[in-house]
Amino acid sequence: MILDSVRRVFECHGFEEMDTPAIEMWEVLAAKGGEEVERQIYKFQDKGGRWLGLRFDLTVPLARVVASNPDLTKPFKRYCIAKVWRYEEPQSGRFREFVQADIDIVGSPKMEADMECVSTAVDALRGIGLSGFEVKINNRKILEGIVEGLGIDSVKAGRVFRALDRLEKVGAEAVAAEMAGAGLSDSEVERILDLTEFKGNEALDYVKRELAGSKAAMEGLQELEKVLDLAPPFGLSGALEVDFSLVRGLDYYTGPVFEIKAKDAQIGSIGGGGRYDRLIERFGGPPTPATGISLGVERLNEVLAAKIGSGAGGPVVFVANVNESVMADAIRISREIASSGIPSEADIMGRRLGRQLEYAEKRGIPYVLIVGPEELKSGKFKLRDMGRKGEVEVLLGDLPSLLLKK
Amino acid sequence: MILDSVRRVFECHGFEEMDTPAIEMWEVLAAKGGEEVERQIYKFQDKGGRWLGLRFDLTVPLARVVASNPDLTKPFKRYCIAKVWRYEEPQSGRFREFVQADIDIVGSPKMEADMECVSTAVDALRGIGLSGFEVKINNRKILEGIVEGLGIDSVKAGRVFRALDRLEKVGAEAVAAEMAGAGLSDSEVERILDLTEFKGNEALDYVKRELAGSKAAMEGLQELEKVLDLAPPFGLSGALEVDFSLVRGLDYYTGPVFEIKAKDAQIGSIGGGGRYDRLIERFGGPPTPATGISLGVERLNEVLAAKIGSGAGGPVVFVANVNESVMADAIRISREIASSGIPSEADIMGRRLGRQLEYAEKRGIPYVLIVGPEELKSGKFKLRDMGRKGEVEVLLGDLPSLLLKK
Repeated sequence: MILDSVRRVFECHGFEEMDTPAIEMWEVLAAKGGEEVERQIYKFQDKGGRWLGLRFDLTVPLARVVASNPDLTKPFKRYCIAKVWRYEEPQSGRFREFVQADIDIVGSPKMEADMECVSTAVDALRGIGLSGFEVKINNRKILEGIVEGLGIDSVKAGRVFRALDRLEKVGAEAVAAEMAGAGLSDSEVERILDLTEFKGNEALDYVKRELAGSKAAMEGLQELEKVLDLAPPFGLSGALEVDFSLVRGLDYYTGPVFEIKAKDAQIGSIGGGGRYDRLIERFGGPPTPATGISLGVERLNEVLAAKIGSGAGGPVVFVANVNESVMADAIRISREIASSGIPSEADIMGRRLGRQLEYAEKRGIPYVLIVGPEELKSGKFKLRDMGRKGEVEVLLGDLPSLLLKK
Repeated sequence: MILDSVRRVFECHGFEEMDTPAIEMWEVLAAKGGEEVERQIYKFQDKGGRWLGLRFDLTVPLARVVASNPDLTKPFKRYCIAKVWRYEEPQSGRFREFVQADIDIVGSPKMEADMECVSTAVDALRGIGLSGFEVKINNRKILEGIVEGLGIDSVKAGRVFRALDRLEKVGAEAVAAEMAGAGLSDSEVERILDLTEFKGNEALDYVKRELAGSKAAMEGLQELEKVLDLAPPFGLSGALEVDFSLVRGLDYYTGPVFEIKAKDAQIGSIGGGGRYDRLIERFGGPPTPATGISLGVERLNEVLAAKIGSGAGGPVVFVANVNESVMADAIRISREIASSGIPSEADIMGRRLGRQLEYAEKRGIPYVLIVGPEELKSGKFKLRDMGRKGEVEVLLGDLPSLLLKK
């Protein structure tokens, strides 16, 4: 139900569905997400001796496919709702398996493409009843600018970014300790943590003042400002918040990065993503700008379960038979009701009427239509309202309009 | 699009969606489908040294889950549309990965449950535009009766069934040779192949005459006759055809087996299944009758692609801008159109108008709305019909009703 709605919103904004295989050659997955992610990939050999892995996200396989299809019409706007896997310590029969709902735009270098993804993801979340969105934004180029300015090499930089990524979770002290462990001096650590102190316009001013000498940082700043300018047309006025501690775990991001939270949901991020302009090239494709956002479907389910409780969905009518002699008729009637678009189900167990009613009650089916020889002869059936315990007499032909009204 | 429709039909008949993990412990998958299937499972070890495998179907994992949840309300009607994997010889980057659309009913021993699955699967196929269905039916108990009568042991019987399963593909001669290879005498082979010669009522008469001494065969015959009786209420009059050569590859079937073909599709079976009354018990659950049908989604896509060609889906409107100064306005307008339920997309590349129109044409988007400073001032926009190459002037507010009419 939830995913139907998400899918509809994606398609309404011009995204086309395209899935890719779950299994990839190991070389495709290796070294694309970063060390930590690489350790989490389910890796195995097939009977031909090739090393394979299960995809850990939907972006890397997309990049591979796009690289080998350079003639794809651009921008290529795709969506995919599918499983990904990341390994964690084995525990009682559980495997780390997630469903991600991904949207990506391949072929546009413009911030409009990034905002199209963010805004469509937010629309999808609105569509399932969430509200009060906060979108944290940052730009990897600014982070690169600062480590570059400090003369930190790329290996160390990776560790710094991963430490920073955990700021919200573990606090500044732990992050500082991790950076020190990576070989940074106290003043270097301080300068990086300083950056994360400011929010909003103050943050932008800080970068303008402190990182004016860095080409990368200035480019990142410009992109960040453009993203902020685009908030109104994309329906995100007041929702964007600059946060320089936002890194997003994956190594392949090159520019803007995003993280989406819903204020009325008491959990962390429900989605995020960013631009990955160099990933398609790494698979042998031409240089191709690309950006995307991924929503965590299990997270969505949690949020919604907390919001609306369980229930919803399921049949609207249960067609009960008074005895087995009319069981086939009840089945036929139920299938007619279903074919008029009203979810309906009949007994297929040969249970007595009382047990059938119990079953309907247990499953929370709101209406029971009772079929007996008399009813079949007269064409008039009893429709029981399981909530109010009332009964009305109906003609079969009137049932759809009656139920649709209720 | 296709899957949305399939899902809707499943839900309309009271099936609830439930997926299970793609990765299972090896023991769960081993020895459930038969030797050949077992060889096709993707098998690997995790970092804790446990042997795991990717599911080869959706039925075995369901049975495992049901076995460990004995309190589930019965009948439990579930559906699942998801990937399964079977290994084949490695070839240029391809892995054997399928999407199956499964429906199962757990807890009912009645033929009504089997027919509910067959009929719902056929309704799903009707829903996506197929027609002219042929449902082949058989019952494993009849096959068991015949091999039992010949004194063939269960290992040999397995080979006989697998040989028989390939009758349509390889012909009677090859099947006879395979059976001889399994150690059957000429007269035994002949007796088994005899059974497959008859269709319809002749086939039933043959069983009544030749296998009257077998309890299993008589039970199978009774079930088969019940299935045939149920065709009318389940909307399958004239569609069922008894075929004693139908085995269905998997080892876990215990009673009725089915195979669905669409006459207007020039391919083999697009779905099949059967009853597996002993599978849940094998996972430590209580004895629990269960039956199910599985549709091959790739097969469906092939059939539909052949039927309707490509196209369909995709945006209905492309909102073009005359230059970058109004690009943000075009985006805002496109999102408004999309939020009224009409799939719409705007330029996010900063392309010139001519290039935008080319893109809309290439993607087969039927209407282009053109946004410029003049249009924004007057509120009147040009809507270009890309098929007829005509243009009309529209107010934005009129656009949804105008397009919905077209």
